[in-house]
Amino acid sequence: VKSGAGELEGVLEAARRIAVPTEYEERRLRTVAERVLRAVEEAFRGVEGHVRTTLEGSAAKGTWIRSRPEVDVFVHFSPGVGRELLEKMVVERGSRALEDIGASWRLRYADHPYVEGFLGDVTVNVVGCYATEPGKWLSPVDRTPYHTRYVLSRLDDRLRTEIRLAKAFMRGIGVYGAELRISGFSGYLTELLVLRFNGFLELLRDGSGWRPGKAIDMTGTFTEEELRALFPNSPLIVTDPVDRNRNVASAVSLTRFSEFVLASRLFLSSPSLSFFDPRPPSRGDVRPLLGCLMAVRLRDLPSLPADTLWGEVLKFCRSVERRLQKEGFVVRRWAAESNGDEVLLLFDIESLELPPLELRVGPPVWLRNAEDFVGEHLRDQLTVAGPWVSGERLYVLKRRALRSARDLLLRWIERGEVSVPKDVAPSIRSAEVFEVTEERLRELRESGYSAFLDAFIDGRPPFLR
Amino acid sequence: VKSGAGELEGVLEAARRIAVPTEYEERRLRTVAERVLRAVEEAFRGVEGHVRTTLEGSAAKGTWIRSRPEVDVFVHFSPGVGRELLEKMVVERGSRALEDIGASWRLRYADHPYVEGFLGDVTVNVVGCYATEPGKWLSPVDRTPYHTRYVLSRLDDRLRTEIRLAKAFMRGIGVYGAELRISGFSGYLTELLVLRFNGFLELLRDGSGWRPGKAIDMTGTFTEEELRALFPNSPLIVTDPVDRNRNVASAVSLTRFSEFVLASRLFLSSPSLSFFDPRPPSRGDVRPLLGCLMAVRLRDLPSLPADTLWGEVLKFCRSVERRLQKEGFVVRRWAAESNGDEVLLLFDIESLELPPLELRVGPPVWLRNAEDFVGEHLRDQLTVAGPWVSGERLYVLKRRALRSARDLLLRWIERGEVSVPKDVAPSIRSAEVFEVTEERLRELRESGYSAFLDAFIDGRPPFLR
Repeated sequence: VKSGAGELEGVLEAARRIAVPTEYEERRLRTVAERVLRAVEEAFRGVEGHVRTTLEGSAAKGTWIRSRPEVDVFVHFSPGVGRELLEKMVVERGSRALEDIGASWRLRYADHPYVEGFLGDVTVNVVGCYATEPGKWLSPVDRTPYHTRYVLSRLDDRLRTEIRLAKAFMRGIGVYGAELRISGFSGYLTELLVLRFNGFLELLRDGSGWRPGKAIDMTGTFTEEELRALFPNSPLIVTDPVDRNRNVASAVSLTRFSEFVLASRLFLSSPSLSFFDPRPPSRGDVRPLLGCLMAVRLRDLPSLPADTLWGEVLKFCRSVERRLQKEGFVVRRWAAESNGDEVLLLFDIESLELPPLELRVGPPVWLRNAEDFVGEHLRDQLTVAGPWVSGERLYVLKRRALRSARDLLLRWIERGEVSVPKDVAPSIRSAEVFEVTEERLRELRESGYSAFLDAFIDGRPPFLR
Repeated sequence: VKSGAGELEGVLEAARRIAVPTEYEERRLRTVAERVLRAVEEAFRGVEGHVRTTLEGSAAKGTWIRSRPEVDVFVHFSPGVGRELLEKMVVERGSRALEDIGASWRLRYADHPYVEGFLGDVTVNVVGCYATEPGKWLSPVDRTPYHTRYVLSRLDDRLRTEIRLAKAFMRGIGVYGAELRISGFSGYLTELLVLRFNGFLELLRDGSGWRPGKAIDMTGTFTEEELRALFPNSPLIVTDPVDRNRNVASAVSLTRFSEFVLASRLFLSSPSLSFFDPRPPSRGDVRPLLGCLMAVRLRDLPSLPADTLWGEVLKFCRSVERRLQKEGFVVRRWAAESNGDEVLLLFDIESLELPPLELRVGPPVWLRNAEDFVGEHLRDQLTVAGPWVSGERLYVLKRRALRSARDLLLRWIERGEVSVPKDVAPSIRSAEVFEVTEERLRELRESGYSAFLDAFIDGRPPFLR
């Protein structure tokens, strides 16, 4: 008979095998890292304003998780170098350095452009930053070398493993990643949390009691109340030890925060490897949802930094949700996914067709426009009953002219009654909007959305499957 | 070409013909009143504790409206007479007096029993009261003789006509009557309002600007703010000149108040005789409402004072409305009507059948019962999708076991999930609940509900028809 503690230890033991790289993998990453570092140093040798080249991120700290090897090489410039020149040099010489060691590469954009390379299964990022003092940041990534130093100075081998467990847990429950599409916990945030609570289980024990507005000061400067006043809309606040005015957890959405809290509670009350290694959603039965799913397919999207594109896509989704609700639709949930070339939006709506009649709520009788309301509806063709008075307001029952979510959405897009963000506007205006029938579902599966559709139909986050 | 003022005068002229009795009618009522008064005086002559017999109400004041002749005879007792004895004597001797002059009669109950008689087209009420001083009331009707005296002392022929116009207007727009079923303006309240504003049009001009919480002090004692604090939930407050702690308008519901405000505005902006003489609702087309109307037929109702019965019926209706809304039904409006023997309730609901799936909103993840919610729904047979986390809460999509408003209502009645007031409980437990189809509608029309059904289908208050 296993004891509870024995069971937990068994799960953690198996989780470590998922999270911690083997010695061979560690060695291989170190080799790649050194090769890249030397090639980049070589490429920038003698460049004016170039200060140094360093290894940063999880490879530098030894906190990367197995099967996600990634090497970040930072090229430091003196503050006198212009931003454009810095970017130009990083792109030109960074890509040349990667070519020199036989890596394929492409340009990526975050706050500024950087070069992403691939060497075997290792991802390599060449990033430019300024060699500045804390508080004199010229670009957001200038903090990164200080982050690396801060974490390294507090690490030992036990904590390294605990961090890897925490990252694997975050990844397994679906909350790992600060990019907008995820809006979850960054690697650095996870490291800080493990350091603060001095272990993985300790983090979960504390996290299982968190409420929105949880504030953790890593700098010994603020009270919880002060932090909540400084970052009023953040479900989680963790000050940056290298910049106390910054919330390291600013990307974390309320949903991801809550999923972490719930997953922590569930893991502690019944530990299971599935939190680190979730099963994929099973093939969902869409039949109960037929008549409820509206799809919007956005094609020909522009090449933009992922966060810019997702920012616009998510803004559109939220605006559609609000407009549907305002019209009387019950939007139960929605989600968006990209298959690489395009984006698919799915809305789960109680009914894709509104009832034939609509109760219109008019003004209170004592408002000036009460008479207008009566005049407008009294003998209108679409009026079925009323207007009448109930409480202090007027009401009228009208026949609806348009009832289908699809037809209404197309009209709202045309008339600007939903937000149509600039860069994705052409894709939205030419979007295909349709009800998901069984046949349409098959088509979507063939377009690379199978896992997304199964996850949506299932509805559960990975740790509840 | 008629001027606006000329048009208004024309409408008022015609309205006066509706409101003001002819000389012949006045004479006839006076004759009846004197006859009844003499008969009642005779019947109570020599009775111990009997102080006097008087004519009260609109017949005494000459403020009754045409085609509604009514005579109130009050029998005053000294305060020493017990309540039961008073009631017994009023019933015995009052009915005998009416028999003596050849009137038919029946017992009625308000706050206490009284005798209602019919002589030709005149309704006669014989009511017992105590001869008390103001402030020493022993029964609610003790104030009535003081009301009569107060109004009479301030009347002249012009104001008498203005009061009759106001009463006919109130009746025409459907807000006349303080009984619970109407919850509108009593005759006395209407008289006070016309006295206060010194005319019918002047009342409408002021009334068209009223907002809920309108307060009028007839006693020169209170500010508007003080009155609103004393009667916090009354849309209209009018202090009683003979008892300043009483709100004469306490029966007026927010809906009736608002209908009066709206009708005042509409009449002033386009005067029409239809405010005094509304058309009946035309035969309504029920087809757009098919699938939306649920009827509840309450039979075998107990003999109770009307306000007691309607109090319970309306309480049940409001409770059903709330329970339906809680379940997800959209209740657009409801109404109740009696055909004499029984009561019919009608609910207009967006759809009598709920959608097959239900989005259940669970607790925030940080509440203790979040885990219970997950446990309850995770692998439940009725779960279609989820549970998932959105914002700080859990959600789950479930298949509904019961979907029809009728089936649910019957279950709620059985389980006590709606209010089932004591006296009408047997009628509610044996109520017939059904969807109003075209055939059912025909049946209901044949049971005496034709006008009610037409008015409900039409939806408009009389002054908007």
